Amino acid sequence: MLATAQAQVYKDAKAPVDARVKDLLGRMTLEEKVAQLSMGSLKGSLDNPLALGVCESPFVTINEIASLSLKAKKYAREQTRLGIPPIQIGECLHGQLASGATIFPQAIAQGSSWNPALIEQMGSVIAYEASSSGMDQALSPLFDLIRDPRFGRVEECFAEDPYLVSRMGTSFVIGMQGQPTQSRLGIGKDKVMCTAKHFAAYSIPVAGINLGPASLGERELRSMFLPPFRAAVQEANIYSVMPSYNEMDGVPAHANSFLLDKVLRKEWGFRGYVFSDYEGLKMLYSFQQIAKNAEDAAPLGLNAGVDLEAPSPDVYSKLVGLVKSGKVKEAQIDTAVARILTAKFKAGLFEKPLVDTTQLKKRVHTPAHIALSQQIAEESIILLKNDKNLLPLNINTLKSLAVIGPNANQVQYGDYSSTRDSRSGTTVLDGIKQLVGNKVKINYAKGSTLSTQDKSGFAEAVTAAKNSDAVVVVLGTTSVVFSGIGWNGHAPESEPKDPFTCGEGYDVTDINPEGVQRELLQEIYKTGKPVILVLVHGRPWSIAWEKENIPAILEAWYPGEKGGAAIANILFGKVNPSGRLNVSIPQSVGHIPVFYNHTNTGRGFYHNPGSPDKPGQDYVFSSPDVLFPFGYGLSYTTFKYSNMQVSSTSFDKNGEVQVTVDVSNTGHAEGKEVVQMYLGNKVNSVTTPVIALKGFDKINLKPGETKTVRFTIKPKDLSIWNINMQQVTEPGTFDVMIGRSAEDVVLKKTLEYKE
Amino acid sequence: MLATAQAQVYKDAKAPVDARVKDLLGRMTLEEKVAQLSMGSLKGSLDNPLALGVCESPFVTINEIASLSLKAKKYAREQTRLGIPPIQIGECLHGQLASGATIFPQAIAQGSSWNPALIEQMGSVIAYEASSSGMDQALSPLFDLIRDPRFGRVEECFAEDPYLVSRMGTSFVIGMQGQPTQSRLGIGKDKVMCTAKHFAAYSIPVAGINLGPASLGERELRSMFLPPFRAAVQEANIYSVMPSYNEMDGVPAHANSFLLDKVLRKEWGFRGYVFSDYEGLKMLYSFQQIAKNAEDAAPLGLNAGVDLEAPSPDVYSKLVGLVKSGKVKEAQIDTAVARILTAKFKAGLFEKPLVDTTQLKKRVHTPAHIALSQQIAEESIILLKNDKNLLPLNINTLKSLAVIGPNANQVQYGDYSSTRDSRSGTTVLDGIKQLVGNKVKINYAKGSTLSTQDKSGFAEAVTAAKNSDAVVVVLGTTSVVFSGIGWNGHAPESEPKDPFTCGEGYDVTDINPEGVQRELLQEIYKTGKPVILVLVHGRPWSIAWEKENIPAILEAWYPGEKGGAAIANILFGKVNPSGRLNVSIPQSVGHIPVFYNHTNTGRGFYHNPGSPDKPGQDYVFSSPDVLFPFGYGLSYTTFKYSNMQVSSTSFDKNGEVQVTVDVSNTGHAEGKEVVQMYLGNKVNSVTTPVIALKGFDKINLKPGETKTVRFTIKPKDLSIWNINMQQVTEPGTFDVMIGRSAEDVVLKKTLEYKE
Repeated sequence: MLATAQAQVYKDAKAPVDARVKDLLGRMTLEEKVAQLSMGSLKGSLDNPLALGVCESPFVTINEIASLSLKAKKYAREQTRLGIPPIQIGECLHGQLASGATIFPQAIAQGSSWNPALIEQMGSVIAYEASSSGMDQALSPLFDLIRDPRFGRVEECFAEDPYLVSRMGTSFVIGMQGQPTQSRLGIGKDKVMCTAKHFAAYSIPVAGINLGPASLGERELRSMFLPPFRAAVQEANIYSVMPSYNEMDGVPAHANSFLLDKVLRKEWGFRGYVFSDYEGLKMLYSFQQIAKNAEDAAPLGLNAGVDLEAPSPDVYSKLVGLVKSGKVKEAQIDTAVARILTAKFKAGLFEKPLVDTTQLKKRVHTPAHIALSQQIAEESIILLKNDKNLLPLNINTLKSLAVIGPNANQVQYGDYSSTRDSRSGTTVLDGIKQLVGNKVKINYAKGSTLSTQDKSGFAEAVTAAKNSDAVVVVLGTTSVVFSGIGWNGHAPESEPKDPFTCGEGYDVTDINPEGVQRELLQEIYKTGKPVILVLVHGRPWSIAWEKENIPAILEAWYPGEKGGAAIANILFGKVNPSGRLNVSIPQSVGHIPVFYNHTNTGRGFYHNPGSPDKPGQDYVFSSPDVLFPFGYGLSYTTFKYSNMQVSSTSFDKNGEVQVTVDVSNTGHAEGKEVVQMYLGNKVNSVTTPVIALKGFDKINLKPGETKTVRFTIKPKDLSIWNINMQQVTEPGTFDVMIGRSAEDVVLKKTLEYKE
Repeated sequence: MLATAQAQVYKDAKAPVDARVKDLLGRMTLEEKVAQLSMGSLKGSLDNPLALGVCESPFVTINEIASLSLKAKKYAREQTRLGIPPIQIGECLHGQLASGATIFPQAIAQGSSWNPALIEQMGSVIAYEASSSGMDQALSPLFDLIRDPRFGRVEECFAEDPYLVSRMGTSFVIGMQGQPTQSRLGIGKDKVMCTAKHFAAYSIPVAGINLGPASLGERELRSMFLPPFRAAVQEANIYSVMPSYNEMDGVPAHANSFLLDKVLRKEWGFRGYVFSDYEGLKMLYSFQQIAKNAEDAAPLGLNAGVDLEAPSPDVYSKLVGLVKSGKVKEAQIDTAVARILTAKFKAGLFEKPLVDTTQLKKRVHTPAHIALSQQIAEESIILLKNDKNLLPLNINTLKSLAVIGPNANQVQYGDYSSTRDSRSGTTVLDGIKQLVGNKVKINYAKGSTLSTQDKSGFAEAVTAAKNSDAVVVVLGTTSVVFSGIGWNGHAPESEPKDPFTCGEGYDVTDINPEGVQRELLQEIYKTGKPVILVLVHGRPWSIAWEKENIPAILEAWYPGEKGGAAIANILFGKVNPSGRLNVSIPQSVGHIPVFYNHTNTGRGFYHNPGSPDKPGQDYVFSSPDVLFPFGYGLSYTTFKYSNMQVSSTSFDKNGEVQVTVDVSNTGHAEGKEVVQMYLGNKVNSVTTPVIALKGFDKINLKPGETKTVRFTIKPKDLSIWNINMQQVTEPGTFDVMIGRSAEDVVLKKTLEYKE
């Protein structure tokens, strides 16, 4: 157990990682090992002689983080016995969670871009910025599915569909960590390790309440909720995985060895380390009550495969005593420590230079990064409705424009941002003003707050509308943020902000617009002016009335710091909208859950093809239909699909099929189209989704231009989890469908898979 | 395969059942065997030389059913080759589904009586009536749990809790079939076989849509949804089980050998036969698509353990060909046929006298049966609110009473009734008029329909209210019924009825009162008159506004043919209300699912004991609390609980603990109290409900009277399904709680279970 005087292999950067780990482990005391399983703050680690496994970046400015990083890592290397540096972690959901970093559109908006290349580029930029202040690992991204809009954290997720989440999530990780071929050797310069969360099925808490149990069977888990995590491990080589807070069928994720050991390590070959969610181990006794106290909880977590406890050693601190009393074997602790040390060596923490605070200004929040944030916003905003081509607005003919609504002059960055300070970004009002200059008169009125019943601003808003040729109404939500400070050293804005209505811990029982927002919109609508509704929010809203009555609707989610500029560019046609819905929009909260890849029985008998049509039976007074389907989104131009070809009409386990389709821009504006490939209508031995997205490509087309889009179908794209819970592809026929959305299949061919 | 000339053992009533089955099976052709696996109508069987396994009673009058029964059974015995009588089946959910039979309160109302003895008595009466027209087997009752009020079939279920459902369901079955000690030998005179349905987890279809998939894990299935079925098999010796329409984790119940073979037969020892739900086998290919066609579906059903196909041989008719082509073994068919024949022999079908149509009048819809129906109604109606003792109304001081609402003068029997003809029963208006005679002036107005937007009746209703001392407003739903005919030979009423808003296939996305019913109530409320709200409906409603504003509320569910008389008796204090909520009432559809026996994480972190109270975080703008909790209900008297005693503070696997508590009537009216025992607060190796009902007793107390109520706690009451899916009781401490409801624990003791 004691360190020997032999050559310090672990300090030799050229030695193999395994040898370095083994050498270091052999030198460590039990207390030092347990400290490696623990997290603290960068600041708190400054007088802790036991080097900690992980230290958190505080929610302050980038400059302060960098200074602290410098001190803490210097201290760890020089003042602790073995000189083991901590992994410096932080949140990077849509930009580093630090005052001064570039703020990108929220994850739900990233997902609606359907542009993985752009998300990879974003990941690369976030890592570049975050590593500037010493960050080694990001607790991002989420690989959860959006399934219940009541749940406040849906804004942190990419999409409702496992394939789309896999594509966006792995791109994010590859951008952050580097190409997997490289990151398997080690994390490179300007890169940071990523964490896949929340493992698993976190996003379907019962009744939409954060931290609630997930109810589902193993087959649904494996078919729907696990594939994105598997992609994170096997395709993106993610370094860390975070178990979810929830329990699944009676087993909290932090004590779930099926998930953390059998599936994650044995089946998927995960070689990284498991990072507990904050207080996730403590909750085993304080909340889920499968342990009496911390002493009981520690072996549960360790045996299941949780390597590191966050945010403080409430539970794993008991491991020293538990080993001494023989209740836990030191070898188990060694296993966990070795995983963490492996990550440290691979990330180069023992060798990499400490941060250079003089470089921050050059590296962070650069014009290029800000432009990328805006580009992602421009590709993520979805045009849901555009009657009589009300949009784009014509800057040359429009004399005046009212800009109204509680989110019109307030930037909403979304949860896991450090601020709601509008001076850090561009509001819709600013974006429009900057675009139109003095060509269009802008009449602004706030109209209402986001959630109170106060209608005192209605009159002013109606007047503004009446005095204008058209009206943009910006409604939405506001999400919890992580500090009260302003941005990049600014003092906080003095104006009081609306109370949080979305984000972590902010779940709802109704998904209609909150407060008097709809009433405000209805008052504006009554003026008879052309109304464009812009939604800036973190969860799908039930907008049945709006769909029926408002001629033009933009879904912007939380579009990041340049969201206002992006929205303005779309409103005035400088950018052709190309976002597509990454989530089905339900008619009402009573229709939840709503997702496109349900099995044939998921929307009721009477609405299924071949069944007698009995409208209004399931449901009485309603239908199970969505308001807007997954994959849906309009453009300022038109696209024609033709000439669908398949390389073969049948294939077997050694084969694959190439699918091509020609897509032409038949309108007058250049634009991007998201060409979607779905597979479905296959009889399998267990029930499977009616259709499932298995390919997509976002292409840009000039007017008159045609491109051929190519997809490949492999046997695994048709695989199912059979009755013996084996992943197999069964013989049979199925349809390949090329669609504009999950409900708008334009071309179709039937193929056969033969055993 | 051919019948031999040996002695016809199967016709010997004294021969053992096994020998009779073996003998008969040996005489049957393949076609005759397959016919035994099939169902048809009584009428259709009259010219079918292949005797059918089961024949359905048509939805006509009891007299017509009896005549048909006579003919069909005579034909089967005398005109078919082997003389095998069919099992005559029908629905008996709350009385035989036949015009003329006594109509009892709907199952959801039976459940709120919390009086198993009364339900057993009802079962006995239903069997007595049904057997009079030849019924051999009832496709009743449901052992499903009420978990999603959007689902139209919740009215057919007893309760949300597995223990309460088990108690009510087994009592129903024992009433129908006879005591299990007897029914194991054979079904006696005036008794009918029962069918437990829908096996399993049918009542939690995704999004509340009938026939949708159930999402849950095996542990939740075994802990919550299976125990009532297990009780039906092991405690009540039920003869038949019906698989549900739904799929669970990708496996339709009709092809689920885990459910139908491993659990039902191997674990529980079920010896009866499995009866497909109507078209359940056909749906394997037409709807769930795990088979290509009927030929594919037949072996799936047979292998899983479905013995009989209903309602017609669409799928099993293929078995003859499948055996001939070697795809199915005849031995498998023999197994299924033997199960059906065993039931026939045990039910005495080969010997029992054909129906005596002259006895019908004496046996069916007798005054005693009608009185029992009313008694159950009187015990099932729940007093939810009674500010300032507005109820009971005083017949001696009240001068006038308005009776208003779309369900005030319309009997609502509920789904699985043959009619909505109000002349078959007593409306609330009739019940009140009959009770008050000429002592109180009754001002009736319908006010509105159940579901349209028509407010033309409001003025008349408001006038009626203004002209009265108090107002009874009767709102609710109306459920699908099984024929357009009137009751017992009556012509149908000519008045058009409201469209169905509840029952099978009538799911909803909102659980507020439908149409303008709430607006009607609000108009009446504005008159300032004392308002009593009576709810006559099939599903829990979100009555937040009503709870806040209306001083007295009665929850009557669908109270059967004498419901109006029962309600009147309660309104005027002739009966002291003693129903208790069998289901948690949610605040809104957005709070669904809501049930009391959630695990500790099921209602959010911030609402749990020991956590900082952060109202409005989960949810924003609301709380996860229920409007009215499970077990809740008021009385016209008051009860005091005292002197809780336990026989021991610890016990082990060979022991049990007696719990006693004294309950006193401290008020001035005689009344019934439902004393409830919950267990909870135990740390187990998997998460378990915070509390769970494990005993209850409904007792009657005169003013001043005290009774001692006794419960027994056995190790199995604490059992869990551990990580290896074994049912075990783990050592540890737990609380025994005596409560008035799941949220009103009045006495508590802590016990210890030792290994």
